[in-house]
Amino acid sequence: MTLESLVNNKKASVIYIDKSATVLDAIQRMCDAKVGSLLIQSDDGQLTGIVTERDILRFCATRSGELESTEVGEIMTRNPVTAPPGCSNEEAMTLMTERRFRHLPIVEDNRTIGMVSIGDLVKSRLQDYTVEIKYLREFISA
Amino acid sequence: MTLESLVNNKKASVIYIDKSATVLDAIQRMCDAKVGSLLIQSDDGQLTGIVTERDILRFCATRSGELESTEVGEIMTRNPVTAPPGCSNEEAMTLMTERRFRHLPIVEDNRTIGMVSIGDLVKSRLQDYTVEIKYLREFISA
Repeated sequence: MTLESLVNNKKASVIYIDKSATVLDAIQRMCDAKVGSLLIQSDDGQLTGIVTERDILRFCATRSGELESTEVGEIMTRNPVTAPPGCSNEEAMTLMTERRFRHLPIVEDNRTIGMVSIGDLVKSRLQDYTVEIKYLREFISA
Repeated sequence: MTLESLVNNKKASVIYIDKSATVLDAIQRMCDAKVGSLLIQSDDGQLTGIVTERDILRFCATRSGELESTEVGEIMTRNPVTAPPGCSNEEAMTLMTERRFRHLPIVEDNRTIGMVSIGDLVKSRLQDYTVEIKYLREFISA
């Protein structure tokens, strides 16, 4: 299973925010949409950044009084790690486990076509493996 | 593989906070310890609550001016879902996927013995499955 099929089932989960929005705007957007990260694009549609719950918590730890006076562009992670649609679930999980992040934008020809979270991958992977193991077991007992 | 063996390898990741600490204290504690959740115990060592990044973001969305005047006890999730040490990785992943949370305290005889995150489970599960599929494939080709 590749990320492409996963992404096709959940396009709605890619939520963008303008880099000049405030950190408080970003928090409200994430809560409204029930997502753990937001993407930031340049004017010509290139992915330029990502902001996650973890980034916001780190900001709050020392600058909680500045939530309304700080722009998302200041705290976002620039040029985030992305994966192509042909990337396998397993490669994506390995990447996320090793690099320790939970949200992976899927980019093709400089266009963001979706986003997968570690939760999405776990769900899909549980299904994949259950099927493969069942098949292999049946093959053995046949 | 059960949660018990997983927990034995990472005891350090269970971080507690007093329920009377402020939300800002909790944020700073999470950032210092690089964890996504904190546990709250009663005086006699019973697990009474959990507070996660998501809980804090939800609080910030509407009450960011009150981070220093609100106690963790007010925003924590009371009586969180837990699992016994004998729970399998797969059961835990299914539970987390269905109930949509990322942190699972492991409790035995009313005592919290550890905490696993969805990231821990993914890492361990990738190893488990790789071994099982390799074994089954070898069996077939033998």
